[in-house]
Amino acid sequence: MGRGARSLMVDTSKKAVILLSGGLDSATVLAMAQADGYDCYTLGFDYGQRHDSELRAALRVVAAQGTHEHKVIRLNLDAIGGSALTDGDIQVPEEATSDGEIPVTYVPARNTVFLSIALGYAEVIGANHLFIGANAVDYSGYPDCRPEFIQAFERLANVATKAGVEGAGIHIHAPLMTMTKGDIVTVGTALGVDYGLTITCYQADDHGGACGRCEACRLRKAGFEDAGIADPTKYS
Amino acid sequence: MGRGARSLMVDTSKKAVILLSGGLDSATVLAMAQADGYDCYTLGFDYGQRHDSELRAALRVVAAQGTHEHKVIRLNLDAIGGSALTDGDIQVPEEATSDGEIPVTYVPARNTVFLSIALGYAEVIGANHLFIGANAVDYSGYPDCRPEFIQAFERLANVATKAGVEGAGIHIHAPLMTMTKGDIVTVGTALGVDYGLTITCYQADDHGGACGRCEACRLRKAGFEDAGIADPTKYS
Repeated sequence: MGRGARSLMVDTSKKAVILLSGGLDSATVLAMAQADGYDCYTLGFDYGQRHDSELRAALRVVAAQGTHEHKVIRLNLDAIGGSALTDGDIQVPEEATSDGEIPVTYVPARNTVFLSIALGYAEVIGANHLFIGANAVDYSGYPDCRPEFIQAFERLANVATKAGVEGAGIHIHAPLMTMTKGDIVTVGTALGVDYGLTITCYQADDHGGACGRCEACRLRKAGFEDAGIADPTKYS
Repeated sequence: MGRGARSLMVDTSKKAVILLSGGLDSATVLAMAQADGYDCYTLGFDYGQRHDSELRAALRVVAAQGTHEHKVIRLNLDAIGGSALTDGDIQVPEEATSDGEIPVTYVPARNTVFLSIALGYAEVIGANHLFIGANAVDYSGYPDCRPEFIQAFERLANVATKAGVEGAGIHIHAPLMTMTKGDIVTVGTALGVDYGLTITCYQADDHGGACGRCEACRLRKAGFEDAGIADPTKYS
């Protein structure tokens, strides 16, 4: 499915699982993996997040960019709580977090959990590559958005699985790690990503309208400004 | 809740998350952690497994042994398939797997996924210890039941979390790792575990009756024989 131009370039021996949230970053990661010829299997998560309009955004991105298969895993991370994104009693802040402080929107061990499930999916389909939109520039307060985390997960993946122990190994790609939001928007735009389909806001309304005030909205808005590209975001 | 004798010994500064499946191994791990004075928070998973009677068994173990809190995480690992335990089209084998071969009952990346979610729960409650019933003796074909896996996960946990980066660190305990099933039954019995409450069978019936034929049943049965302890298992 998806655009024909892309499918001509796919190398089916290069299977990859892409974590696809429906946000700006992961849509860009998907486009980058596709440009590199990976046969992309996308994985979304319904984890009790406030912003479940991003799940619908992920489906729009899949339809527009085309992937081999898209799966959605449901898991009730809200049962353990601890984050403004899954706990209705914790408010999403509209001010920037102080440098080095872990924001209340951090979901405990989220990237570890998502990569683990992606690893299981990779084992089932025989993929050796996982892609994640982790970024150490904008999310400096999140421990699981740093290069050390990606390296430690890759080491784990290679002892945890048959592919790691006996096969060609598991490779974790975090191509956005050191890019600014402006860089990301620039690269994605060049690759044809339609950012109007994506949702970044932590508290988007039911129609996908962004609040324009939360930290995620402000970072995204500044990214388009830095890139000198018109912001296609629909604000509520 | 639970038995008074235990609660006298709990050290609330030693919080631990215990993966509790409702099987023989994890009930033993819980008893061992309790005997060591840990304040135990148990975590079960409803992951589309065939043997969901083990979820009810976990509740019986919690009631009998007593834990601070028990949470159940639902996640549809069956959406990615790849295992006889979650895929109705793959039959549970009744013969032993050849040495070194990964059995079809292996659930891709299951221990990685479960430990990741346990890590998130540990972050929320401020626990520095995770306990898992991984065993390299009986499950030699499972890559994620080896000491190397536990060590790699511990390294990951210490870069993935605030507790690891800034705090007292995260410690992963796999106390059954090198024990035979007979040793496990012996230790658990000495600690007062009521194995009649637990379910090990991969295909137990709706009333919790074990098949007596699958690999899990055969290992369990042999464990009681080796320990010289009467087998309290209810067979269907």
